[in-house]
Amino acid sequence: MKSLSQFLQSGDWKGEKHVPVIHIPQKAKAGEDIEIKVLIGEEIGHPNTLEHHISWIKVFFHPEGAKFPIEVGNYNYTAHGEGEVFNEPLTVTKMKVNKSGTVYALSYCNIHGLWENSAELVIE
Amino acid sequence: MKSLSQFLQSGDWKGEKHVPVIHIPQKAKAGEDIEIKVLIGEEIGHPNTLEHHISWIKVFFHPEGAKFPIEVGNYNYTAHGEGEVFNEPLTVTKMKVNKSGTVYALSYCNIHGLWENSAELVIE
Amino acid sequence: MKSLSQFLQSGDWKGEKHVPVIHIPQKAKAGEDIEIKVLIGEEIGHPNTLEHHISWIKVFFHPEGAKFPIEVGNYNYTAHGEGEVFNEPLTVTKMKVNKSGTVYALSYCNIHGLWENSAELVIE
Amino acid sequence: MKSLSQFLQSGDWKGEKHVPVIHIPQKAKAGEDIEIKVLIGEEIGHPNTLEHHISWIKVFFHPEGAKFPIEVGNYNYTAHGEGEVFNEPLTVTKMKVNKSGTVYALSYCNIHGLWENSAELVIE
Ligand SMILES: [Fe+3]
Ligand SMILES: [Fe+3]
Ligand SMILES: [Fe+3]
Ligand SMILES: [Fe+3]
Repeated sequence: MKSLSQFLQSGDWKGEKHVPVIHIPQKAKAGEDIEIKVLIGEEIGHPNTLEHHISWIKVFFHPEGAKFPIEVGNYNYTAHGEGEVFNEPLTVTKMKVNKSGTVYALSYCNIHGLWENSAELVIE
Repeated sequence: MKSLSQFLQSGDWKGEKHVPVIHIPQKAKAGEDIEIKVLIGEEIGHPNTLEHHISWIKVFFHPEGAKFPIEVGNYNYTAHGEGEVFNEPLTVTKMKVNKSGTVYALSYCNIHGLWENSAELVIE
Repeated sequence: MKSLSQFLQSGDWKGEKHVPVIHIPQKAKAGEDIEIKVLIGEEIGHPNTLEHHISWIKVFFHPEGAKFPIEVGNYNYTAHGEGEVFNEPLTVTKMKVNKSGTVYALSYCNIHGLWENSAELVIE
Repeated sequence: MKSLSQFLQSGDWKGEKHVPVIHIPQKAKAGEDIEIKVLIGEEIGHPNTLEHHISWIKVFFHPEGAKFPIEVGNYNYTAHGEGEVFNEPLTVTKMKVNKSGTVYALSYCNIHGLWENSAELVIE
């Protein structure tokens, strides 16, 4: 069997436009709303055309010590010029957790495949 | 044939917790980023449990005079207590359009079905 | 408020290529697997290009006498020529129900908007 | 940065119920419809309850020699007992490709995380 893990690309989002950017607070409280902002292209914009665009970003949270990651949300950006409407690959949402852990973002460009990033969250 | 339109419920979001709330500016400029905030439960919270939760919100834009609406984005809220992780049914995103029109939000509660709302956008 | 119901188009799938086709048995048994086939273009093919394609089909089931429809599944067809890969807008899946009711299919063409159809299911 | 690749689990689907099963023909012709059947639980069934279920299966195709995989489709199984309706984690669909390559399936159990499998396709 071959694994998709060979296709999970990453890098520094300041230099590579496909890498999802994750903004979360460094510290938060258990059970309180935590704002998550995920986006593509904060520093270098990515095309948004019918031929070439970001289709979706998924967010996962892996609580410290857990065996499996939990999918938090899945955000599809579906307008790439139809009727001259464009959705930017950006979602701000909120989650509640009760343990420290790691936030992962996975995104898909219809031409350049899968990209990921992660950020650490400390629950006090 | 029966139509799903019989199941598209709406109402005043201040009194009915399922109605999607749409926050957009009243006026914007053609081709510039427009922030859209859609959520459920701004006034009265909705449950977020494995048994009862908001699964998704879709956003459409109907440019004035167009025949069809364009799907802008689809936002799935997928954590409802797994590993004590919860995603709130809230998305802030951005779109660009070049004509005035109507923003529609359609949402789905796994128990109480389909709900919709709309808001007018003026492009200057 | 304006309603999306004005945009739920339908018709005879033998003459209108966008109408989702639903194949289910006319009768089935409670709690047993029921095969559902939903597709676009059984009689007249629909384009599948980056510029013009079917993005998704959703299936709902409305049990007789229930107040709300239940979303059964959501099927996104995401390859429209990237790398010369194309996914046809067709899904065969299975569901179990325990009451007679109506199966609804809702689909979205990125140019021609929302289309729906329904079919009756009798549970013996 | 941590990578989601540490969470991409696999194994023999005859012994591990989460592994997606991929049925494709071993050989096919360029540009002709190829049937893909992906499912969870062919040998050992997986639970389908509000608390524990398969949420989705994604299918990718990686043409031989290409740098990136193409997402073919994304299939969400959204009924896990609401109104006593259940969608089985099974999709049969069709794709067209014009090169040999590898089909990947990625799936998500809301409790046990991400699972993958692959199958080789020869285009004659
Ligand atoms: Fe790209
Ligand atoms: Fe509800
Ligand atoms: Fe069309
Ligand atoms: Fe499981």
